[in-house]
Formats: sequence, structure tokens, C-alpha cells
Amino acid sequence: MSAAPITPVILAGGSGIRLWPLSRVDRPKQLVALHGGGTLLQQTAKRVSDPDCFTPPVVVASAAQAAAVEEQLEAAGTPPRLLILEPEPRGTAAAVALAAIASPEALLLVLPSDHVVGDEAAFRRAVAAARDPAEAGKLVCLGAEPDRAETGYGWIRRGEPLGDGAWAAASFREKPDRPAAEAMLAEGGWLWNAGIFLFRAGTLLAALEALAPDLLAGARRAMESASIEGETLRPDAAAFAAIPAASLDRAVMERSSDVAVVPAAMGWSDLGSWAAIHAFGPADSAGNVLAGDVVAPGSRNCLVRSEGPTVVALGVENLAIVATDRAVLVVPLDQTQRLQEALDALEARRSGK
Amino acid sequence: MSAAPITPVILAGGSGIRLWPLSRVDRPKQLVALHGGGTLLQQTAKRVSDPDCFTPPVVVASAAQAAAVEEQLEAAGTPPRLLILEPEPRGTAAAVALAAIASPEALLLVLPSDHVVGDEAAFRRAVAAARDPAEAGKLVCLGAEPDRAETGYGWIRRGEPLGDGAWAAASFREKPDRPAAEAMLAEGGWLWNAGIFLFRAGTLLAALEALAPDLLAGARRAMESASIEGETLRPDAAAFAAIPAASLDRAVMERSSDVAVVPAAMGWSDLGSWAAIHAFGPADSAGNVLAGDVVAPGSRNCLVRSEGPTVVALGVENLAIVATDRAVLVVPLDQTQRLQEALDALEARRSGK
Repeated sequence: MSAAPITPVILAGGSGIRLWPLSRVDRPKQLVALHGGGTLLQQTAKRVSDPDCFTPPVVVASAAQAAAVEEQLEAAGTPPRLLILEPEPRGTAAAVALAAIASPEALLLVLPSDHVVGDEAAFRRAVAAARDPAEAGKLVCLGAEPDRAETGYGWIRRGEPLGDGAWAAASFREKPDRPAAEAMLAEGGWLWNAGIFLFRAGTLLAALEALAPDLLAGARRAMESASIEGETLRPDAAAFAAIPAASLDRAVMERSSDVAVVPAAMGWSDLGSWAAIHAFGPADSAGNVLAGDVVAPGSRNCLVRSEGPTVVALGVENLAIVATDRAVLVVPLDQTQRLQEALDALEARRSGK
Repeated sequence: MSAAPITPVILAGGSGIRLWPLSRVDRPKQLVALHGGGTLLQQTAKRVSDPDCFTPPVVVASAAQAAAVEEQLEAAGTPPRLLILEPEPRGTAAAVALAAIASPEALLLVLPSDHVVGDEAAFRRAVAAARDPAEAGKLVCLGAEPDRAETGYGWIRRGEPLGDGAWAAASFREKPDRPAAEAMLAEGGWLWNAGIFLFRAGTLLAALEALAPDLLAGARRAMESASIEGETLRPDAAAFAAIPAASLDRAVMERSSDVAVVPAAMGWSDLGSWAAIHAFGPADSAGNVLAGDVVAPGSRNCLVRSEGPTVVALGVENLAIVATDRAVLVVPLDQTQRLQEALDALEARRSGK
């Protein structure tokens, strides 16, 4: 591309236990090698590392994981131009606002650090298609082509065509129920919100000014009194804690009339549950997705992963079986959303001792 | 009891992988703490440790496990009067023949070392009831009262009453199919062969002489050239290898007309599969049998055991889930008999690397 390079903004501050026991509070999903080579953070950074298209990234991460994040980015050969270390999680709106304030003239590509993109060429084509509307002042979402009635994602409806592979976003629908998801899949023209956005920093700051002025003001205060050392920026903790917590979707995307969407059949998954990881595959002829020192004779449609012990899954169906040296999870693939319940039971058992 | 004490003969030479990964070739089931305090071998030895009733035991074990067997018996405070170390497995007939040859005047109580007896008082009452017929020249089996149509056990039919809680054994039926087992359970008068036998050594030797003379002759040769050191006896390896391999049931019990049976509601299980261990319990209100650092929220009718890692079994049913630091097994309780198939698959996978 001859156009000015894009600044990736990699959101690496997430935490959660939806992939326990592989992810833990002290080792969130983006820092784990879940799929293919390297951790999801490293894969994300490499996806936007072509210097003809991209500047080095701005990475927003949790201060608690600073060492691991820096080490992984260094090891991947993708050191950040700026590492913003959040003292606590405040949602993606605050994280993106900090990055936009730090690079107010840049064209920003916001990327979750814990998703997977199977077709990198399709991803690059979608980013290229998003450039014109983004430079023209749109907030552009990449919309993953849906292949199932997924109830765990946000859906975006295509509206008027904007030309060259982009459409206005007509409406958002967050985590629909099963009948609604099936209706959207059947209707067509709906895409999954992949959480990947391209916009000018100025467009985003103007949208925040209009739609979430308190949030923007809080972010500006946190940046004004930030401490900077080398490429690492630490927002002022007290000012940061005062920023309203919100997602970028909720604070801006679902409420702005300037949102566009670029469909992308890019093999995207948020890998947001063991069921999603099973769905992403690759599966063998019995529908099993196997990783590590595992065998699954007579088993069907299972996810069986090990980071340590030998796992034998014999004659079972529709299960996620995940083992590390410290813990083992066995759960039906259609009940993986109940993981929090199980970890609560575990905690209760331990504290009851 | 004022009668002469009984000599327990504990058969500890078994091996097998039916309880993999807890039992392994180098750590057979009787050397594992499967249920309650101590290993099954230790529990067996303690069960017959009352000096008013029993002499110290004769223990027949595999030479490969000699150190572990000696250590466990010592730790349990039940050192053997004689430890016979077999150079290789030749079946229970050879093991019992060796013990009988070593103690030709004794009243022998043959005990598997890897079963469990839940009601020790009922066990002692049954042994007491077996004494008279045994001293009168019967080969007396303890018959466990069946509570289900178990296809994995041998069944013994009660014949004519011999008085004082003993009956002649009318017939044996080894591992019946399901309809046959259900018919026997419905018919009544059938008992499970618990593998526990009381007889005079001379009775057994005479039965072997009549029914399995080659086996007895082989056992005598192996004992004639045995090496003895302290309480440890090692049969001559070449002579031992020439003994025909057979079970005591097959070689003698099923073929002798001098067999008696004493019913015993003694809470017996051979713990011969994960399904048997689940059936033995104790189960919680959801039918789960849990051991170790495990939780099973929303799960029903499962066996969940860990010797190491934390195990979370969430929303699953009718599974055995067994974890050690080295391996994890997940299998439906009604398919545990397919374990060999799984271990073959594992072996193939490893050798294919």
C-alpha cells in the first residue's frame, strides 16, 4: 500500500476463566498457546506486523501481566510502539480511548488479542476495504460471515451499500436467543461482530465526545497525569479508576449513526468457550478435536486437550476434556457456559476445608 | 476361638490394568490405596490378623513386587510367616499349591489381596461357619450374597444343606450373560464366588492329586529346589515355569464333588472395574462417588477420583473420571471393560510417533 500505515491497537487487558483450566486469572487466554504456533497475543501481533501496512502496535494490557506481555511481544519480534498498562480493567471503551488520545492523528485498527483468524489473506482484504470508509469518517467494524446460529456473539445487520465491500451498519443485536439467531442466519445480511474496528482516532474521539463525554474526559485525565518510561505508559491510577467502565460496542458502536461494516469470511472465532474451540477445529473423522498427549478411541464429537498428563477418552461423546498438570475439566460441550458455577463449587469446597 | 488357628494364604501376585491409570503393570491394584485406609493388600492382611484366630499369613506375590509387598506388610504390622515370590504369574492354582505344600498340616484360608470386604464381622462369622465343613474335608467357598445381575463374576449355586450355615455347592457358572445373571438373581440360591476358600491343606493337595496331577507335580518340583532366605521362599524358576497355568476355580473348585459354600452378606466387591468401584460407593445423593481433590456440580451417577490434579466434572452423567499426576481416564461406567482397547490405542499412538 502506498497509503499511510495503520496503527494497530491490540487489546490485551482481558481476563476470565471461560477456558479454565488452560486459562487462569493469572494467565489469561491471550497469553496461552491455544491454537497453532505461539500465543494468541503473539499471533495477533504478527497478523498486523507487515511494515508496508502497519506501524508497530499500541498494546493495551493489564499492569499485572506487563512482564508476560512484553516478553511475548519481544519473542514474536513485534515490540510495541507504545505499551499502555491499565492498573485495573475498565472495559474496551476506556482502553481504546487511551490509545486514541495517545495517537490522535492515526488511523487505528482495534484488535482483540485473544481471537483467532484462520484466513489471514481475507483479513487483510477486509482491512483494505475498510480503509476508504474509515478515512472518510466512518467507524468501520469487520463483520465475520456467520456459519451457525451462534448465541454467544453480537450480530450486525448490513444496511445501505457504501461501495467497495463496505455497508452501513443498520443495527446491532448482542447475544440473541436461539430462535433469533436462527432467524438472522436464515435471513442473511447479518454478520458477527468480530471486535475488530478501523477508524481515525479523531473519528473515535469525536464519537466519544458526543456519546460518552464522561468517559472521554476521564480518559484524558488519566493520560494527562500518566507516567511514561521508554515505550511504557501508565495512566494515573486514581484518574483511571474514575473512568466509567463500558465496552466500545455499548458506548459507541451500537449508538453511533456513522458505523460501517465490512464482511470478511476470514475464519474468525473468539475461542470464547471450549465449545467454540471445538467448533473451530480441526476435527478428525469422528468429530474429535485432539491436542496434546491424548487418545479418544470410540469417542465422537469431543474436544480432548492436554498440556501435561496422558488423557484417554474412551467411548464418550460431546464432551470437552481439558487437562493440565494442575487441573482437569470434564464438561459436555453444550454446558461449557456453566464453568463459573463449577469454579464456584471448587472454591466453596476449598474454603470449607 | 479355642480351635487351632487358621493360616491365611494371601494371593498378591495379580496384575492387570483394569483400574488404569490408578493401577499399572508396575503397581497392581492390591498395592494401591483404593478404598478406605491402607492399600488393599494391607486391608486384607489386617482382616486376618487376630492372633486368636489366625497365624501370620503366607503371602504369595510376584518377585517383581517383592519390595513393595514386604514394605506394605511391615507397615501394616502384619509380617508374613512365609513370603513366596513367584518368578512369573502362573494362576491361582499354582500359588495355592505352593502354599499348601509349604504348610501341609494347616487349615488354609485363601484370600485374594485386591478385593474389599465391607462387613468384617459378617466375614468372620462366615469363616467360623466354614471351619467345621473344612475340617471335615470339604473345600469351602465363601459365597457373597448377590444384589445385582453381575455378569463379571462367577456364580455358585447352593445345593443340599450341610448344617450351621453351609451348603454343598451344586454348580458353578462363570461370567454369565445378562439374561442368565438376571435369571439367577431372580431364582435365588445363587451366590457370587468371592475367591475366598477355607480347606485343609491336605484336602486341597488330595484334590489336586486327583484332578490336576501335573500341576501338583510341577508345584512340588518348584518347591523341592526352592531357595529360602529368612521368611522368603523363591521357587525354582525353571520348574515353576513348567507348572500348567490355571485358576484354582477351574482346576479344582468347578470339578470337585467335595465343594461346600457358606453364604456371607459381607459387603464384598472385587473392585474389578471402575464400574465396580462406583457400585461399591459410598455415593452422595446424586449417585456420585468422589475421592480426592474433585468436585462434580450438576453431575450424576459418576465416579470421580484424583490422586493429584484438581478435577472438575461439570454436568456429566454415568462416567468414570480418574486422574493421576501422569494420566487421566474418562469413560462411561458401562464401557469400562473396553479399557484394554484404549490402552492399545495409546500404545499404537506412541509407537507411531
